[in-house]
Amino acid sequence: MTAGLNDRLGDYVAIAKTLGVDAVVLVPGPNFTRVVSHPFMSHERPHLMAICADGRTAAIVPNLELQSWGLVGFDGPVFDWRDQTGYAEAFADFLGYLGLESVAVEGQVMRVFVHHALLAAQPSLRIVDAEREISAPRMIKTPKEIEAMREAIRISERALERTLTGFTLGQTEKDIEQALILNLFAEGAEDHAFRPIVAAAENAARPHAKARKVLLQRGDALLIDFGARKGGFCADITRTFFVGHVSDEDAEIYETVLRANRKGHEVTRAGITAHEIDDAVIGVLEASPFAEFIRTKTGHGLGREVHEAPYVMRGNHMVLPAGTVYTNEPGLYLEGRLGVRIEDVVLVTETGSESLTTFPTDLRVLPC
Amino acid sequence: MTAGLNDRLGDYVAIAKTLGVDAVVLVPGPNFTRVVSHPFMSHERPHLMAICADGRTAAIVPNLELQSWGLVGFDGPVFDWRDQTGYAEAFADFLGYLGLESVAVEGQVMRVFVHHALLAAQPSLRIVDAEREISAPRMIKTPKEIEAMREAIRISERALERTLTGFTLGQTEKDIEQALILNLFAEGAEDHAFRPIVAAAENAARPHAKARKVLLQRGDALLIDFGARKGGFCADITRTFFVGHVSDEDAEIYETVLRANRKGHEVTRAGITAHEIDDAVIGVLEASPFAEFIRTKTGHGLGREVHEAPYVMRGNHMVLPAGTVYTNEPGLYLEGRLGVRIEDVVLVTETGSESLTTFPTDLRVLPC
Repeated sequence: MTAGLNDRLGDYVAIAKTLGVDAVVLVPGPNFTRVVSHPFMSHERPHLMAICADGRTAAIVPNLELQSWGLVGFDGPVFDWRDQTGYAEAFADFLGYLGLESVAVEGQVMRVFVHHALLAAQPSLRIVDAEREISAPRMIKTPKEIEAMREAIRISERALERTLTGFTLGQTEKDIEQALILNLFAEGAEDHAFRPIVAAAENAARPHAKARKVLLQRGDALLIDFGARKGGFCADITRTFFVGHVSDEDAEIYETVLRANRKGHEVTRAGITAHEIDDAVIGVLEASPFAEFIRTKTGHGLGREVHEAPYVMRGNHMVLPAGTVYTNEPGLYLEGRLGVRIEDVVLVTETGSESLTTFPTDLRVLPC
Repeated sequence: MTAGLNDRLGDYVAIAKTLGVDAVVLVPGPNFTRVVSHPFMSHERPHLMAICADGRTAAIVPNLELQSWGLVGFDGPVFDWRDQTGYAEAFADFLGYLGLESVAVEGQVMRVFVHHALLAAQPSLRIVDAEREISAPRMIKTPKEIEAMREAIRISERALERTLTGFTLGQTEKDIEQALILNLFAEGAEDHAFRPIVAAAENAARPHAKARKVLLQRGDALLIDFGARKGGFCADITRTFFVGHVSDEDAEIYETVLRANRKGHEVTRAGITAHEIDDAVIGVLEASPFAEFIRTKTGHGLGREVHEAPYVMRGNHMVLPAGTVYTNEPGLYLEGRLGVRIEDVVLVTETGSESLTTFPTDLRVLPC
């Protein structure tokens, strides 16, 4: 095995020990990709690796992935299976070889059919959902990972500016979404991190709105939430603009959200808890005349996944170390009228925080 | 509820009855989207709906999705929950209200954390993986769905032709991948259906290869497997080209794969089983001098998902009715040398089959 791979596998040996289980079982997804540095797909074919508390490893691999698997440097035994014969035997052989009584799995990644295949092969197996513990090694980003995120953000910001430059009143939400996606790829994204949200006026009041074939109108708020993926890492940015004109009340709503966003940057530094950040950010909104329009928490971790630990919300007392990256995205959502969200990507440092997002947050009225 | 929604919910009432379970539970994914006609995201927040054998319905919805949920026309009770307080109570109330002893779930879609949340709220609940039965209503496409797929395929074919027109020897696999993605969006895709595979020479021997920063060479096979998404439906096309020149043996390999592909089109018609198609297609490869290079089955269903039922492989004796859409994608994979795959999207009709893919399959040498 390569040295890097061994180090990364070692993280899960330690986690298995801490959890008191015989092994950690990973399936294709962000932790799996972190370990093997190759993005295996997770379709209808079970593919998994076990890292045991005693340091042994083994994998179940679909036969058609064997060649790619051979390149990752994993030296535990491989139990492969073919579509024509199914995977029951591979699971039985894998579990028989390892002799496990308990495993920890990623509950947000592993699907029920794999869970059932494990239990079908060994009904006595105890399966623990340890999503949080297993994903924890991803929370602190390496310098290389932070650089990938900076690049994803730079690409996203250039794409946003190009999209705004091309904006006209004759565009629908769909048109803007399409232009944004094209600009993301033209600026060098390897993918979009998620389907962009482009929502105007009352549609922006839906946190996960879908773009409509509806023309923008003067005075509309225009919320754009999107990000590039680069080097396997995600950007996630939201800006809210106004079309041609902004009313005094809308401007006040905007400035309230902006104050909440700035508060998040200010209070962040290594050692703070996710709860404390959310309390400070949401506290600004709660102290405003718009408290009834709060619908969401401050944000979430960002990295290989758009949503990952730490979830920045009250009740999550996880301490954030330097190198944690999270989204600071307070918002106010006035049903039937408008939504305003301002989202930056924040890097936690020893002395404070750095906004990886550099796109201006001042209230911007798009000329039209 | 709208009439269409009621009809679609009725499909799952019937499935619950057939399976002998109290309810079918759907989570965001292709079946869920089919029911509510809105693509809810499936992140870290549990969101599900139950359709009971006795016709009752209920849902667990994250609070921040309540507005969007209100638009789908679902009139069963909704148990919502907020990030700050968690979802345990919503699960308990939901199960308490419905009084279920057994549920059928989509094992390929539902993740373990939802499975565990159901069991935590009611340890006696029997959870059956009925992926196949629950997804079955998606297998027969409506005329409107087939039209969406035709459009996704037309977009994909235009994007491929543009990419080939721009091809030069100075490009790497990565360059071609990037151009292809840009062309897909420029031609009107709402998304790519999956990350394209652009693989030359020995890299093409890996069925799920990753594009490399490696320049193409004269004589290389160039395998391109990709597709647009449009109207929520996927295209999935593979063509294999040769760069500047093709050797006699490579041409023979290509023609062998093409004969297998054509056999799939010929034998298909309503009433054939998935097994019989695969047997015919793979049979052509087995009878050739290249039998040892077979690595995959014939293909898979295509629709809202890139991979869905029916899986076209020996051992799957599912009968294919008219309206089924599947990928016919035989291939030969010579490790360390090249891979050839030719993939069309096939519509099963009463009298035979129609290739929704119209991009020519004749051996094509790219000028350079």
